[in-house]
Amino acid sequence: MRFCPFAQRTRLVLHAKGIKHETVNINLKAKPDWYLQKNPLGLVPTLETSSGQLICESLITCEYLDEVYGDKKLLPADPFEKAQQKMWLEDYSKTIPLFYKIPTGKKNGDDISVLEEELRNKFAKLNKELVNKNTKFFGGDAVAIIDYMIWPWIERLEADELMHCLDGTPELKKWTERMSEDHAVKATMHPLESLKAYGKSCLEGKPDYDYGL
Amino acid sequence: MRFCPFAQRTRLVLHAKGIKHETVNINLKAKPDWYLQKNPLGLVPTLETSSGQLICESLITCEYLDEVYGDKKLLPADPFEKAQQKMWLEDYSKTIPLFYKIPTGKKNGDDISVLEEELRNKFAKLNKELVNKNTKFFGGDAVAIIDYMIWPWIERLEADELMHCLDGTPELKKWTERMSEDHAVKATMHPLESLKAYGKSCLEGKPDYDYGL
Repeated sequence: MRFCPFAQRTRLVLHAKGIKHETVNINLKAKPDWYLQKNPLGLVPTLETSSGQLICESLITCEYLDEVYGDKKLLPADPFEKAQQKMWLEDYSKTIPLFYKIPTGKKNGDDISVLEEELRNKFAKLNKELVNKNTKFFGGDAVAIIDYMIWPWIERLEADELMHCLDGTPELKKWTERMSEDHAVKATMHPLESLKAYGKSCLEGKPDYDYGL
Repeated sequence: MRFCPFAQRTRLVLHAKGIKHETVNINLKAKPDWYLQKNPLGLVPTLETSSGQLICESLITCEYLDEVYGDKKLLPADPFEKAQQKMWLEDYSKTIPLFYKIPTGKKNGDDISVLEEELRNKFAKLNKELVNKNTKFFGGDAVAIIDYMIWPWIERLEADELMHCLDGTPELKKWTERMSEDHAVKATMHPLESLKAYGKSCLEGKPDYDYGL
């Protein structure tokens, strides 16, 4: 699905490593039978290799691609650094629901201040990791897999009117600016207007997967 | 915590690889300050290396141990096989809540037939993987990391009076018998009576972490 942030993770790694690939988008509200045969859970992304091997779950597809393709590895070789990045990602995966709960809450007229505070605290933790590491990106001075795994929801902050949640986290804000310059990020980026329109269509319960085509 | 199945995952890998280690158990209802300093979330296990590096999350600790120690690797070298085992584990992680919901439901006098059916379906999927692979264990003909990650909750089936859920899955049942003979499984196994008593204490809301000491 063109706007799915999980599928974008895989597309980021495909672009970052220069892997030749074909993208087939599906309608998540009317999943084709052929897709459900490949991935019975019906989630995106699913990676299909040229020999027909099927891999699901965004993180698993990205680790697979990093292992199999290219000399430039996006996962650290050092086992502790790798473990550390996986711990951060595990923590980040608990942040992801907030990116959906806040816009939905706002649309319903709920008090979202507690949720926004929670998001700010999560961002403060990420900011602290960048300060502690004193590097341009989470994995070091080059973009690593962890940066790509975090990115898709950060790209959507502006469309979701959540940019102010970055106000107290200057290093994380600088990281978002650096990420915007990355070629894989640029290759998978949607125009702000498209993200806004798609987000609006989701909140209205009628996701417009084809917006802008 | 002695009876924690997540901590047992790490202990299984430590034993399987013959890694010299010290186990420090904590009281999960009264977490010591020193522990919260090492792992702010307060979950077990936490792995501390001799150089003071801290690693949390059972799967991450196990992958770290497998990468760093010993020639005999528990994770497959082939990227697709590795991805496949991770996908099965991701699916298994959604099974884990059932191992808690069923005994709790039974204690509360709820109708647990739907939950038991769900567990049987999950077991049927695992059984099918074994049939398709036609190997003794999930990773092949030797015990692999995935077998150890699945095991702790299977060890508790008898104590939780859930053995009948294995009735329709003969290959999985044979797997449990083979696993019971593994030296790491034996080294971390609790007597059935202890698991029963500990399980009962949990259902009564007063977990007896020290039972049997």
